[in-house]
Amino acid sequence: METIKKKTRARDTVARWNSCGFDVGLVPTMGALHQGHLSLVEASLSECDKTVVSIFLNPTQFGRDEDLDQYPRQTETDLRILKQMGVDMAFTPAKEEMYQENFCTWVVQEYLTEKLCGAFRPDHFRGVCTVVAKLFNTIQAKCAFFGRKDFQQAAVIKRMIRDLDIPITVRVMPTVREKDGLALSSRNRYLSQKERNSTACLHKALIAAREGFQSGVKDIDILLGLMRERLNKGGGIIKPQYTEIVAPDTLNRPETPSSSDIAAIAAFAGDTRLIDNMPLGGKNRDIYLNQAGNERV
Amino acid sequence: METIKKKTRARDTVARWNSCGFDVGLVPTMGALHQGHLSLVEASLSECDKTVVSIFLNPTQFGRDEDLDQYPRQTETDLRILKQMGVDMAFTPAKEEMYQENFCTWVVQEYLTEKLCGAFRPDHFRGVCTVVAKLFNTIQAKCAFFGRKDFQQAAVIKRMIRDLDIPITVRVMPTVREKDGLALSSRNRYLSQKERNSTACLHKALIAAREGFQSGVKDIDILLGLMRERLNKGGGIIKPQYTEIVAPDTLNRPETPSSSDIAAIAAFAGDTRLIDNMPLGGKNRDIYLNQAGNERV
Repeated sequence: METIKKKTRARDTVARWNSCGFDVGLVPTMGALHQGHLSLVEASLSECDKTVVSIFLNPTQFGRDEDLDQYPRQTETDLRILKQMGVDMAFTPAKEEMYQENFCTWVVQEYLTEKLCGAFRPDHFRGVCTVVAKLFNTIQAKCAFFGRKDFQQAAVIKRMIRDLDIPITVRVMPTVREKDGLALSSRNRYLSQKERNSTACLHKALIAAREGFQSGVKDIDILLGLMRERLNKGGGIIKPQYTEIVAPDTLNRPETPSSSDIAAIAAFAGDTRLIDNMPLGGKNRDIYLNQAGNERV
Repeated sequence: METIKKKTRARDTVARWNSCGFDVGLVPTMGALHQGHLSLVEASLSECDKTVVSIFLNPTQFGRDEDLDQYPRQTETDLRILKQMGVDMAFTPAKEEMYQENFCTWVVQEYLTEKLCGAFRPDHFRGVCTVVAKLFNTIQAKCAFFGRKDFQQAAVIKRMIRDLDIPITVRVMPTVREKDGLALSSRNRYLSQKERNSTACLHKALIAAREGFQSGVKDIDILLGLMRERLNKGGGIIKPQYTEIVAPDTLNRPETPSSSDIAAIAAFAGDTRLIDNMPLGGKNRDIYLNQAGNERV
């Protein structure tokens, strides 16, 4: 595995692969890799000829009061895991490599970014769109892999790709969950044991909305009520920020829910902000880890 | 010459050229081609193996009260000229091809876009950056050609390319001028004969700043005064919007001018907005047409 810090070298390497006719896959990450990231890496390894994993803790997607400083950093461990998996390139630029002096150009999006998490994190998606566009321009991959856990992020990025004509395909992969349903996130390691014990209620709330819908409840307010009721069983430790049901393309709340609509939650456990989502209909395609599933990390 | 309206077909054609190792040049235009555009096309034809000229009257870079509706359209003539010159592809997308339903992603830039023209045309450079990013993503050229007449536009685009890591090189080509110094612009055809007779004062004002600087005047206010005085000789027909001297990288007014700084003017002749600029130092590399120079258009 090549570990590359410079954009020009990364670009040249990928250009060489492209000129050989290899399909290149890109997995953008902020490091602190967990089984959720690794499922994206596995998808790229199996679908593409060459796999690039970027590790860049992007400061511009964190708000002033958010957790940039505490965000877990474990680059050596991450690189060891990626090498073992057979990744071809780790792209690990420094902040100064990605944001040069007098940086002043941003990719912004209206509408989709104003809803759900965007309503509470005003510049978050500006930072996400900008860094992802930069990564796409640097690593000219055929396909990029994102996790469905960050459902709004995937919707925003797909819209950005369409609107800006970026020549890349996005694959959105199933959420990976702990055995009790907690969606894997680098932020889970912030949780105290007591908080961790309460977090399964997010998953249970999503399941409650699904079960309600699938048993015939077509009233949004009732479905939202089911979710909130389940969240409240977090014993006061889980503080919901939003509970929503939205259409997957517009992120608007539908008048009458349909099976492709998404139940989505953001909640705090102490200072830790957790998000999760699940479609109301269809098969639950999420991946639930058993104890043995965690061995890579 | 292929004339292509669809982004996917244009992209595929260019990808084929790239895979053959051809250097592709792109000349983005809004049509209504004049000798200024054609000098960009000639540069691309001589420097690149394949030349793509885009003709797209981009609505998003016009303000609500600006001249989108009147802007000259002459696509058949433009295509005939480009074909005669040996251009390989004309990319002529419709508005709906470039801006799909629910379009909501924009490339925005701070600082550089707030100065000069940007101060008077608030969303102009958002429209320019967005459409140029889209064209760069669709036509994956090695090199793009822009005119120095739109000096701020070139500075903004170069900064966008740097900030977003877009893999393309920009070449900024000399301003082409009528014999009396008026910079060529598609908007010049709006001018009445009486207005046209007064427009040479823009060029004379820039020359006055140059001559002042080169004869030893190092006081910005005096240089700006020389420019304004010359503009006022437009007989009341020319109404200046701004007269400025700026550093080429920051677009800030320097405390003491240097030879790389740029004298820049925007002015109205009737309803027609004209812009022009010239560096204070160095050789005047602009191209002045004689009567015989216009034969292509």
